[in-house]
Amino acid sequence: MLADTPTPPYYAVIFSSIRTDVDGEYAATATRMVELAGQQPGFLGVESARDGVGITVSYWESEEAIRAWHSNAEHQIAQQEGYRSFYQSFRLRVARVERAYAFEKR
Amino acid sequence: MLADTPTPPYYAVIFSSIRTDVDGEYAATATRMVELAGQQPGFLGVESARDGVGITVSYWESEEAIRAWHSNAEHQIAQQEGYRSFYQSFRLRVARVERAYAFEKR
Repeated sequence: MLADTPTPPYYAVIFSSIRTDVDGEYAATATRMVELAGQQPGFLGVESARDGVGITVSYWESEEAIRAWHSNAEHQIAQQEGYRSFYQSFRLRVARVERAYAFEKR
Repeated sequence: MLADTPTPPYYAVIFSSIRTDVDGEYAATATRMVELAGQQPGFLGVESARDGVGITVSYWESEEAIRAWHSNAEHQIAQQEGYRSFYQSFRLRVARVERAYAFEKR
């Protein structure tokens, strides 16, 4: 699904990653984090794809909303598991969306 | 592959899309556009994944570099084909990366 976000400005968290071969609770944790993110104040939407590289972009009203999500207790536990076992490498980038364009085929 | 980008600030173009079932020249065009983007002034890197939703994030030194890439003649032809046949829907967001963090497992 593509996210229907409001008129900019708003914020994006671009999380790109390469997984380890440890499966464990990864799928359940990833699903739960998307669900939990969606319940946070200031959450605007999320887009995600994986084929080798995984890219998840979540959209937020403000940097404060991003900081609060980062500090969420259940999210913190998932982050620890990410470092410990899920990810071989990742990049996390926080960006301010300046302009946006949507196309829908008729 | 994950992109190794410099210290922020820099810019990200977040392109998320849902394809039509028209294959045609899509794969060749997508590959060529990544190659061509990599030759443009101000290009910093690209990350891409698709499983249903496709997400490609390209990174650039400046908004001017993004505008020049948007106007590139060969890219313009590919964009036309994108509207005409490749994409059911897409979102294009231009964002200023404010902070970034990289993790590599030892």
